[in-house]
Amino acid sequence: MAQQGFFITFEGVEGAGKTTQARRLAAALGPDVIVTREPGGPPISERIREIFLTADGITATTELLLIAAARAQHVAEIIRPALEANRTVICDRFIDATVAYQGYRGGIDIAFINQLNRAATCGITPALTFVLDLPPEVGLQRQRQLHRNRLDKEALVSHRKVREGYRAIAAAEPHRVKLIDATQCPDVVHAALLAEYRKKAGLL
Amino acid sequence: MAQQGFFITFEGVEGAGKTTQARRLAAALGPDVIVTREPGGPPISERIREIFLTADGITATTELLLIAAARAQHVAEIIRPALEANRTVICDRFIDATVAYQGYRGGIDIAFINQLNRAATCGITPALTFVLDLPPEVGLQRQRQLHRNRLDKEALVSHRKVREGYRAIAAAEPHRVKLIDATQCPDVVHAALLAEYRKKAGLL
Repeated sequence: MAQQGFFITFEGVEGAGKTTQARRLAAALGPDVIVTREPGGPPISERIREIFLTADGITATTELLLIAAARAQHVAEIIRPALEANRTVICDRFIDATVAYQGYRGGIDIAFINQLNRAATCGITPALTFVLDLPPEVGLQRQRQLHRNRLDKEALVSHRKVREGYRAIAAAEPHRVKLIDATQCPDVVHAALLAEYRKKAGLL
Repeated sequence: MAQQGFFITFEGVEGAGKTTQARRLAAALGPDVIVTREPGGPPISERIREIFLTADGITATTELLLIAAARAQHVAEIIRPALEANRTVICDRFIDATVAYQGYRGGIDIAFINQLNRAATCGITPALTFVLDLPPEVGLQRQRQLHRNRLDKEALVSHRKVREGYRAIAAAEPHRVKLIDATQCPDVVHAALLAEYRKKAGLL
């Protein structure tokens, strides 16, 4: 069966407002919308996540493969069936997060990550991806984590790499990926998302 | 640091005698040999294995990615450090099992499995691989599983595909992979393995 529902993903660094905006968009689109998130999903995916959250000494490659495994199960059990039932699915973080975090920040080969994403999603691609873009300083301040010590310098460098990754993805796939200025007030962001959705879904 | 120790893997269908022969070879090679197995290895790999042994409704892709994740951790924590310490490592099942079982039997794209294997092993390759080759009927009889019902017909078909996979690997990489007739008596098999090892290790 072919993918029929509309699939939307939210991406961005911590503090960008993804979760809030995903919920607001879902509410605006009606009661039939399914909201899900990664890491997360069905019990198998949660069990996989539990391993890389709690395992000391896990390697970057092991973590990447576990993320891909959790995604494969999430797509198979939740996302694909919902889309095939013609429902709209909103997912808080998906394939692009792995490219931005494990690829741009973590230094793992991006071609390999893309291939894992293709295997895990088995052809399921977001119709529309919102990257809530934010300077790292603002994101970290929103999380109240910005103190002037070494850890925060590292956090800044880390966030910068993730942001750079997301911006590169948006530049490479402008048709699917929309960069949204997340420093704007939440109502303005919400209106921008809704306008992009309507344009893409052919409702304007 | 470069891989220095000698790395040997054992492959074959159930009932071929891998575990016994791996232990006998280890005993013959001396006290410094490390014997390990897949699925298995360090605690993280065992936790990963636990998921795909117990999770209902797991997809073939999720399982494959979990196998690769467990392997990545096994290589990083056990196999690579031992080889770098110049020790001989014998591993009961490794990369070729995934090609034979998930690829030839399971139908997953073998090029993708090879790529996962390369990522998980990060350049660690067996110097010598023994495929203990056995007609499926003999392997199943040894496991006392051969009754003439439907399940066993399926088991036969399944074992045949795995065997075909192993034989294809041996044909493609004759320098590394040695096909050993495992219908022979265990002493003869042991002697054959030891002779191959000595030839390869330059001791003959």
